[in-house]
Amino acid sequence: MADYIIRDARVEDCGEILQMLKELQEFCNNWGPLKLDEHTLRRDGFGEHKFFDCAVAEEKKKEESGPALVGYLLYYWAYSTSAGRMMVVEDIYVRQSNRTKGTGSALWAYVTKVAMEKGCKRIQWIVHDWNTNAIKFYKKLGAVDMCIRNGWLVYNLDADAMISSLAMLTANKQ
Amino acid sequence: MADYIIRDARVEDCGEILQMLKELQEFCNNWGPLKLDEHTLRRDGFGEHKFFDCAVAEEKKKEESGPALVGYLLYYWAYSTSAGRMMVVEDIYVRQSNRTKGTGSALWAYVTKVAMEKGCKRIQWIVHDWNTNAIKFYKKLGAVDMCIRNGWLVYNLDADAMISSLAMLTANKQ
Repeated sequence: MADYIIRDARVEDCGEILQMLKELQEFCNNWGPLKLDEHTLRRDGFGEHKFFDCAVAEEKKKEESGPALVGYLLYYWAYSTSAGRMMVVEDIYVRQSNRTKGTGSALWAYVTKVAMEKGCKRIQWIVHDWNTNAIKFYKKLGAVDMCIRNGWLVYNLDADAMISSLAMLTANKQ
Repeated sequence: MADYIIRDARVEDCGEILQMLKELQEFCNNWGPLKLDEHTLRRDGFGEHKFFDCAVAEEKKKEESGPALVGYLLYYWAYSTSAGRMMVVEDIYVRQSNRTKGTGSALWAYVTKVAMEKGCKRIQWIVHDWNTNAIKFYKKLGAVDMCIRNGWLVYNLDADAMISSLAMLTANKQ
């Protein structure tokens, strides 16, 4: 029997999700300083405009010490004009203490069901090329590298580039 | 003066957006058959759960022949645990008749403002590596190729792989 349950995150989990996010950030040591805080997570995940959803793995404990989360999977709803409704997985993380217990698989299975119930035809995510353990897991799931298969490239405009590009685009206005 | 206006799409635009989507699909001739129809676009863009938003370029016409759309930009709201609120651009398309009139730039500027008003710190999108004209435009905006810069790979599970992976993941359940 698993010693955890998987459930939807609640607003009061945000503090612990943030803590796990920091641990994940240490694992991916090229992120730079964490820009999110608990207030931001509460607002963006549980406010009027929900920018993300989240599933968590919670340890089954007898003590009255409050919930102890051992993993999370943060995702959002997206749209592909080729596939329709889509789920995008932003982060999946399992705490060191709970590795090799199937927690990652359980989180993934949980949100796959959520995606299917919503009528999604695709789950999509980004992985770093150095994260070979994760890639091995994704390939086992039957996932396809779209950069290799379809020549996809991911482009980003950061906040500064948004401002400068807007100035450029509106200067060109006819 | 531009002979078009940029505005938010309305539910009654879905027929013409679908038509433009078909034209875009012909341009990207590796998509396979279009899976979306007008009903699906109406439901997913204007229903109870909005999976996407859309801006359109509408030709200014004197005739009473109804709106004539010359371009669209379809996007959705997303979340980055490193950057926070994010906009993802799914499609941008301008009809042949309206190319070189700044319509693409005007659509892009319009949604950049929308993103900034929502407090987004990032705009993100995928482009095919063969679409060199688009890539030239994106680089001019100051956009960065995250596959090159951060070693990002995009992975997808399609509908069949979602089902088969779920069976695999739940069979492993402890």
